[in-house]
Amino acid sequence: MKQLKRTKISEALRLTNFGEEVNVKGWVRTRRGNKNVGFVALNDGSTINNIQIVIDIANFGEELLRPVTTGACISVNGELVESQGKGQSVEIRATEIEVYGSADPATYPLQKKGHSLEFLREIAHLRPRTNTFGAIFRMRHHMSYAIHKYFNDRGFYYFHTPIITASDAEGAGSMFEVSTLDIENPPRNKEGKVDFSQDFFGRQTNLTVSGQLEGELGAMALGAIYTFGPTFRAENSNTPRHLAEFWMIEPEMAFYDIHDNMDLAEDFLKYLIRYALEHCREDIEFLAKMYDEELTDRLNFVVENDFVRLTYTEGVKILEESGQKFEFPVHWGTDLQSEHERYLVEKHFKRPVILTDYPREIKSFYMKQNDDGKTVRAMDVLFPKIGEIIGGSEREADYDKLMNRVEETGMHTEPIWWYLETRKFGTAPHSGFGLGFERLMLFITGMANIRDVIPFPRTPNNADF
Amino acid sequence: MKQLKRTKISEALRLTNFGEEVNVKGWVRTRRGNKNVGFVALNDGSTINNIQIVIDIANFGEELLRPVTTGACISVNGELVESQGKGQSVEIRATEIEVYGSADPATYPLQKKGHSLEFLREIAHLRPRTNTFGAIFRMRHHMSYAIHKYFNDRGFYYFHTPIITASDAEGAGSMFEVSTLDIENPPRNKEGKVDFSQDFFGRQTNLTVSGQLEGELGAMALGAIYTFGPTFRAENSNTPRHLAEFWMIEPEMAFYDIHDNMDLAEDFLKYLIRYALEHCREDIEFLAKMYDEELTDRLNFVVENDFVRLTYTEGVKILEESGQKFEFPVHWGTDLQSEHERYLVEKHFKRPVILTDYPREIKSFYMKQNDDGKTVRAMDVLFPKIGEIIGGSEREADYDKLMNRVEETGMHTEPIWWYLETRKFGTAPHSGFGLGFERLMLFITGMANIRDVIPFPRTPNNADF
Repeated sequence: MKQLKRTKISEALRLTNFGEEVNVKGWVRTRRGNKNVGFVALNDGSTINNIQIVIDIANFGEELLRPVTTGACISVNGELVESQGKGQSVEIRATEIEVYGSADPATYPLQKKGHSLEFLREIAHLRPRTNTFGAIFRMRHHMSYAIHKYFNDRGFYYFHTPIITASDAEGAGSMFEVSTLDIENPPRNKEGKVDFSQDFFGRQTNLTVSGQLEGELGAMALGAIYTFGPTFRAENSNTPRHLAEFWMIEPEMAFYDIHDNMDLAEDFLKYLIRYALEHCREDIEFLAKMYDEELTDRLNFVVENDFVRLTYTEGVKILEESGQKFEFPVHWGTDLQSEHERYLVEKHFKRPVILTDYPREIKSFYMKQNDDGKTVRAMDVLFPKIGEIIGGSEREADYDKLMNRVEETGMHTEPIWWYLETRKFGTAPHSGFGLGFERLMLFITGMANIRDVIPFPRTPNNADF
Repeated sequence: MKQLKRTKISEALRLTNFGEEVNVKGWVRTRRGNKNVGFVALNDGSTINNIQIVIDIANFGEELLRPVTTGACISVNGELVESQGKGQSVEIRATEIEVYGSADPATYPLQKKGHSLEFLREIAHLRPRTNTFGAIFRMRHHMSYAIHKYFNDRGFYYFHTPIITASDAEGAGSMFEVSTLDIENPPRNKEGKVDFSQDFFGRQTNLTVSGQLEGELGAMALGAIYTFGPTFRAENSNTPRHLAEFWMIEPEMAFYDIHDNMDLAEDFLKYLIRYALEHCREDIEFLAKMYDEELTDRLNFVVENDFVRLTYTEGVKILEESGQKFEFPVHWGTDLQSEHERYLVEKHFKRPVILTDYPREIKSFYMKQNDDGKTVRAMDVLFPKIGEIIGGSEREADYDKLMNRVEETGMHTEPIWWYLETRKFGTAPHSGFGLGFERLMLFITGMANIRDVIPFPRTPNNADF
């Protein structure tokens, strides 16, 4: 076969030099035709669109074309021609075809009929080859890149916080243990307890639930940092909203108060959604058509509206006076449920909402305490369909106040001595927040199940692939 | 204190609107002066350079200034003036100062005297506030961003491979176990063995040693992907080159042969180093002055020279005929040691080297087998000072040949059934490689110990912070 430089299908579809010879490579999505001419829809992952390969069967013979079935991988040399069919402008009239790999129609699971999302989860090794997951994972890339670009352009530094830790950022939460001890027969000390001094790190360690505490260390030196890494929760929750392994973005900024923090969160989310609308138009249109007709409107809705800002106390008042029946009753002091958050966003304000100044009992020890003795400078950003998409706060900068909360909540200080020291040495007002990346992906793609926005979901009883 | 918008010190140092009032915030690096006037060198992490704050003591009084010592955090309003001193063009004549946080000179560990890198590792929560680690972590950010930008600009998709897995990419390697079982008293089955069916994932799981196998799944659908995430090795190696937790970049590309792979690796590394030279000049100059005088020359050397490409067999011949005494004897079939790699690069060719076609017995099962029956299409990129910086290969695309190697090496096929299926369904020539991010950082910064190029190193008996 003649050696031609490969053209990606995303580029080939934009070419206009008709009559010239090109090479494309990819996977057969469908093949149809008759005895004389075959039409292959070829996809290489560079775009959701296929390029049509027109095959004059007499030139090739049935034998060569037999393995050219759905899922097969081929390389095609051919002439670029203006398409006669509607919907696309370019097709390729094949002159040479090399079959790299066949896909036996009797066993290849991705035949052209539609598959359920449940079934596709079981073949997560192949589902990126479908239109749906091609679109989702391309968007996952674009959102990741937009996150890095946003922070880089604003002088934030990407800061790698540790995955294996001996501390627990939230003071609670179910964690995965990490160990090299032989669990069948671990070494034991005199008291008969497992002797973790013989473990790899000389102590008990676990997978991080948040990079925030270490992120603050970075902010108190570099000024503004962000993390973007995997975090873990060992909650036995089999729901469409929970993953045991997910990715988080956590910016931390010295010299930001809660208002600066809210401004950043709003600007950041709008930037990301605008980026998606600009860079992922075709993928969004496909997902909207297939899964969520209101997707594009919802994305525009967020970009075009100022977020409403009010206190938790005001929000609870609105909910109490709404006359709405909620599954979970709401009153001052309770943690808000998704139904409450969505009522405020979708029914009451019809705009994204930032709630601030939550009761300190339902928030973490590190949040800045207000003078009222009851609330802390927390902020939750609430979105339509999703509910909470960002949670953050101004951090408590005062050593004594922080220690009071540590003691009130019964935390051990030893594992976080280094965190506490930041308030002893050159403390400063500072703030930060966390964005669950898969929450963002749910919002951007319109998908309903969080297992469908990460390549290889980790959930109870599932660590395949 | 008058509310002024904060100016980052990196920006303030470039201002020329002398006479205007600005606000800067940051940490005091040093304070000197006399009874009448104080000079504070202030740093906010946005640059390695400090801005000088000139304080007329009569205007403030000793009481206010007492806590303004090394490590304290302050906010300064003042007039931007042209500097009288040499070395910098701008300073600030303070009109108002607010002390955010003091740093008791009796206990703050980072006084102005130089500290050993060993000591600074023990205070990893504070070391980002030093010139050295500020420079290193800013560069870590810029290199991370350059990696994402390089791939994004070339149509590669960032693909998140799982951290918790039930498979082992290398078929060997020491791994960390991940579990939610109670190690003190785990559930046991009838045979008395630990019952992993009751573990969180219903089976034994571990931390990934590489995202490659899952990355290949992405490449066989999206065309070209890359990973950039944490990987783990539970090797009990206390050396300046080993970490238990480190970050890897692993691109995988459909339709790339070994030559395309080499071209990409060379272009990628040169791009990253050029990016560092352009974006991190001051930080590199500082590190060169302090730690490695040849750093800038070495970086330029790599950018300016074509990498030499030769086979392992040719490389071994050169080593055998070199007359050089090596600690480890070298002959065909042995894995090359750092001393051999550095000889080829630094002494023989005086250029970076890509060695290819290694003996298959010393390489992984997934590498494409050459027709000679002895070698595989592996490639290692060898750098001055570092030795191997990239390892990769064309992947074996043929199902039967791959299965032969799997059987020869005694691997279990069950945990990687999904990987093997990619060769059954639409297989294609494809290639990839892995770059250890901290190896790159060692090269770029000139640092000698890998614990100094990651914020919170994880090594045997050390999981602090």
